[in-house]
Amino acid sequence: MTADMPYALRRGALRALLPASDVDALLVTDLVNVRYLTGFTGSNAVLLISAAGDAASRFCTDGRYTTQARAEVPDLETVIDRASALFVAKGAGGWGVRRLGFESDHVTVDAHAALAAAAEGVELQRAPGLVQQLRLVKDEAEVVALRAACAAADAALADLVAAGGIAAGRTEAEVAIDLENRMREHGAAGPSFETIVAAGANSAVPHHRPTGAQLRRGDLVKIDFGALVDGYHSDMTRTLVLGAPADWQREVYELVAAAQRAGCAALAPGVAAADVDSAARTVIVDAGRGEEFVHGLGHGVGLQIHEPPWLGATATGELAAGMAVTVEPGVYLPGRGGVRIEDTLVVHDGPPELLTMTTKELVEVG
Amino acid sequence: MTADMPYALRRGALRALLPASDVDALLVTDLVNVRYLTGFTGSNAVLLISAAGDAASRFCTDGRYTTQARAEVPDLETVIDRASALFVAKGAGGWGVRRLGFESDHVTVDAHAALAAAAEGVELQRAPGLVQQLRLVKDEAEVVALRAACAAADAALADLVAAGGIAAGRTEAEVAIDLENRMREHGAAGPSFETIVAAGANSAVPHHRPTGAQLRRGDLVKIDFGALVDGYHSDMTRTLVLGAPADWQREVYELVAAAQRAGCAALAPGVAAADVDSAARTVIVDAGRGEEFVHGLGHGVGLQIHEPPWLGATATGELAAGMAVTVEPGVYLPGRGGVRIEDTLVVHDGPPELLTMTTKELVEVG
Repeated sequence: MTADMPYALRRGALRALLPASDVDALLVTDLVNVRYLTGFTGSNAVLLISAAGDAASRFCTDGRYTTQARAEVPDLETVIDRASALFVAKGAGGWGVRRLGFESDHVTVDAHAALAAAAEGVELQRAPGLVQQLRLVKDEAEVVALRAACAAADAALADLVAAGGIAAGRTEAEVAIDLENRMREHGAAGPSFETIVAAGANSAVPHHRPTGAQLRRGDLVKIDFGALVDGYHSDMTRTLVLGAPADWQREVYELVAAAQRAGCAALAPGVAAADVDSAARTVIVDAGRGEEFVHGLGHGVGLQIHEPPWLGATATGELAAGMAVTVEPGVYLPGRGGVRIEDTLVVHDGPPELLTMTTKELVEVG
Repeated sequence: MTADMPYALRRGALRALLPASDVDALLVTDLVNVRYLTGFTGSNAVLLISAAGDAASRFCTDGRYTTQARAEVPDLETVIDRASALFVAKGAGGWGVRRLGFESDHVTVDAHAALAAAAEGVELQRAPGLVQQLRLVKDEAEVVALRAACAAADAALADLVAAGGIAAGRTEAEVAIDLENRMREHGAAGPSFETIVAAGANSAVPHHRPTGAQLRRGDLVKIDFGALVDGYHSDMTRTLVLGAPADWQREVYELVAAAQRAGCAALAPGVAAADVDSAARTVIVDAGRGEEFVHGLGHGVGLQIHEPPWLGATATGELAAGMAVTVEPGVYLPGRGGVRIEDTLVVHDGPPELLTMTTKELVEVG
């Protein structure tokens, strides 16, 4: 972490949003938002962002993280205390805060009651989603991390296939662990979520968890996985086939691939999120398989594996340049098998940037 | 999951708590609580527990989990819907609910506002911590899972030491990955939290994250890790030494070990949680090292790695038979090194049951 990291810039962007929320400071309690604004990677901290600037802001964590806070958050005054949010709420009045915004989409009903009791002389005000609003559009440091996470996943899958790691007789769980270890070899801190390896009929379960079931010749093998790099999550699904595909497998695969291409092609600034879903879904509905595509098209990805924007039939809002999203249609035939194909991309003026580079042709293994 | 699983019993115990909270149903939104009450392992679900019994209760998840819900929650009527909590709040009146409790320690301020708008003709009532109250005391199925998780961690560490896996020249990160893979070989779904391997001066950082730093002869190596089995988390810390210990290392080690024994010996039904902390802390304070023990003594462990009861200086409440807790004092000398020793135990009438069986003598490796 060097002085040219973007944290101060991000805090400045947040400060610019405070007047419209009619608060003179924001209490940031969502730990992911704290990380976004400071770079802090520990498990407990809150942040007071003052409209008056960084000098009037406070970073608060507990005694386990004294050393780490000094290293990761050298540019904010750090307070060490146990009950961080209450401590900051108590202190806010003394630091000149009169109207303190809180993340009402994160603070629980009970925590809010405790904050209100602690914040003497300070008025608490709902201020949901301010940091999430900033996080919607990734800055360059974030895109760099997402590229690295996606590259680690691509490299791991390539290694796994080259090593014959997807083969009849191996279990779903073995393949999942093998893939996760290969991601670590390529620089990932770990998987970005619980790896899904689903073979044969299991591939028809959208969020199947790997089991001791053995892969068999003729199976579709759906692999949904990602790498975690510098706190950023990649997300990719590929569906392979063990041996030569049956006609129905190829038909479903080509349908999902066409829908996925249509979804990716629809990604552009100003496009309604629901229209991206629709662009892909129409392809599947027109083929008479609309009932077999049982989930939304995609989601934002960044410091969280699932974050706004949401790309679904009922989604609201529009895309903007710099948003990182997944596009992941699927068709699932219960008892037989399913296909999902998923990429992570960044929206741009012009074509989106594809971060997950593994081929989307139907790969035959084993 | 078979019919003799304890979910129906747990729901019955919860129902018995509803009258005292003055509600005729509870909306369970905390996913961990949903799992505790149903066995459901997916990532999205809510549960309506009616005082009138299971027949009047509802399990709600989204379309990705239709198949899984049928398998895991065969004994409750399942509703498939996207916006689960709102859907249940809307339906509650029609299902005869008049006063609907909600988990005010989990529901956010904004989510509560949406629930209140959706729940026509139904009065929402704060009802925090009811399921957590049940989860404080583990039933036999939970203790079985905790034993299995602790055994996987013990076996993995034994393998690692026997294989010479903790050795000069290896990096902290390599040791961590090696240990995690060995836990999987012993039946863990994965680590129960991010494994801590901290060598030399890094061992003085209570929650150090493994780095590329190499282990060196003379280092203290602090390893804090656990296995996840059937959703249950084990938690154990051992501190080893690479080569023969220096006098100061042995002195600190013996001090922490004595404090840890005192903490474990204090575990009994009816003992105040703060007194358990005090039993261990006094040993360290009396040795003049109180300032170097910077965290609480321990915490409950179960479906979450950290859950009530809390064992700290300011903790409230008393222990009861069946509680599963960690006892983990530490002494940290910044720039030099630190020692933490941690077990997971179950409180009983009579001596507690020790679940983490690895020796607590100072082990010299390499």
